[in-house]
Amino acid sequence: MLTKTPHLFDDATRVVAGDSRWQGGTSPDYWAFVGPFGGFTAATILRALIEHPQRAGDPLAITVNYCAPIAEGEFDLDVRLVKANRSSRHWSVELSQGSADVAALATAVFAERRPSWSHQTTAMPDARPFASIPPYTKVAVPWVKQYDFRFLDGDPNFYAAGKDAPYSAYSRLWIGDRVPRKIDMLSLVSMSDAFFARIFHARRELVPFGTVTLTTYFHIGSDDLANEGITHVLGCADARVFNRSYHDQSGELWSPSGRLIATTTQMGYFKA
Amino acid sequence: MLTKTPHLFDDATRVVAGDSRWQGGTSPDYWAFVGPFGGFTAATILRALIEHPQRAGDPLAITVNYCAPIAEGEFDLDVRLVKANRSSRHWSVELSQGSADVAALATAVFAERRPSWSHQTTAMPDARPFASIPPYTKVAVPWVKQYDFRFLDGDPNFYAAGKDAPYSAYSRLWIGDRVPRKIDMLSLVSMSDAFFARIFHARRELVPFGTVTLTTYFHIGSDDLANEGITHVLGCADARVFNRSYHDQSGELWSPSGRLIATTTQMGYFKA
Repeated sequence: MLTKTPHLFDDATRVVAGDSRWQGGTSPDYWAFVGPFGGFTAATILRALIEHPQRAGDPLAITVNYCAPIAEGEFDLDVRLVKANRSSRHWSVELSQGSADVAALATAVFAERRPSWSHQTTAMPDARPFASIPPYTKVAVPWVKQYDFRFLDGDPNFYAAGKDAPYSAYSRLWIGDRVPRKIDMLSLVSMSDAFFARIFHARRELVPFGTVTLTTYFHIGSDDLANEGITHVLGCADARVFNRSYHDQSGELWSPSGRLIATTTQMGYFKA
Repeated sequence: MLTKTPHLFDDATRVVAGDSRWQGGTSPDYWAFVGPFGGFTAATILRALIEHPQRAGDPLAITVNYCAPIAEGEFDLDVRLVKANRSSRHWSVELSQGSADVAALATAVFAERRPSWSHQTTAMPDARPFASIPPYTKVAVPWVKQYDFRFLDGDPNFYAAGKDAPYSAYSRLWIGDRVPRKIDMLSLVSMSDAFFARIFHARRELVPFGTVTLTTYFHIGSDDLANEGITHVLGCADARVFNRSYHDQSGELWSPSGRLIATTTQMGYFKA
């Protein structure tokens, strides 16, 4: 059932409009280890752009560079429309707290999604229905508890480091909000960062990790996404290179109808 | 043979240091249809960061948003060190010309690549040797003539649109500079945009296309890259979704030694 009252996610990612300067704040519900969950930060930034009076079109791409930990409390979003074209808008956003340096630096492209030739080159991976899989409940980190993860492949096992490493870095899972919420661009960008760090899978242990940069592309218009009327997506994530303290991650988010609606890549720091 | 005189690429992507404002200029040799080749623009931006007196570490990630066509001639690069950490630096660069709006907006992350656990999850795709394949010479666009493309799969056929579309969007090819040049971070970022637009492959016809945003990750330190001592890479590119005037592209750049040294994604506008 969809909630009628404001969803925790909407409450957490709320922003207050200033002029070019907007305000938001961290939420204990979307807290990670040393700062907010990166997907929360990306969603809050995207919300400021979606709610911006000069917004036109739909989110097409967003890149968030995580420059420094965000402390508990309020933050400012310095939102700038860098270039407005006939059918696209380019944005830059800097997140800061008080007089401190920039903690997150983001760029985004919005675009009018006009009709065109359409083609999807790949089919959705096999997936048993969401309802047939028990939710994953083994991690007590606040942000993780806001999600309903149902693993089809790559079920986390973070306390089994051993001589057989490296293990597979691949995961396939359904992702929904713990309290179901209709998926929109905001939850989509948040879910694009909701995969556990690939290093945890590849080594089957928890090591210090932090996302350094995240890029997410949207392959669907917001009207079409609303028409999908979904509360969970199939997420697939993998990594290709772990080297000299950084590794990549690439991910796909699929609508249960079989549409690839978002793709994402990131680089993260790890200590191992 | 490596050239002893300055390479065309280095001449084209040269930058002149100002204070926070740097200057560069377009090159007829790296011209595309309505502006410079996007890889040239990305490389010129990256060069300003690599040559910046406050640079520390190696390029880890760069995102370039192409906001508007760049006109022939000089351009300014407004380079800003947004955040300096102990082992990483976050940069933002705006490219503009005269009093015109921003034409390209970029962010980049540089990092000290410290030793760590290392693992590559995938092996290089099969590839006959570079020297055994004839160069691709069918496109007379200036920037294309600067590269030595040797196709293993997805040999371009842009004048065969027909009822069998969509065709494969996948390509596998060796990429080197036409005048061989030892590959460094600059040529790597340029080559990450040197794949022909996937829409040309999927439809086997040339249609209006422009890269809107490009993100490239580097999986190797610049010292290790120098030690590879290579003048060409194996490039693989594919697309997943063509929808409502935009499509994605993802690509890999492999050292002939079998190392995955860079990965890239982009979203491009198309009219079809």
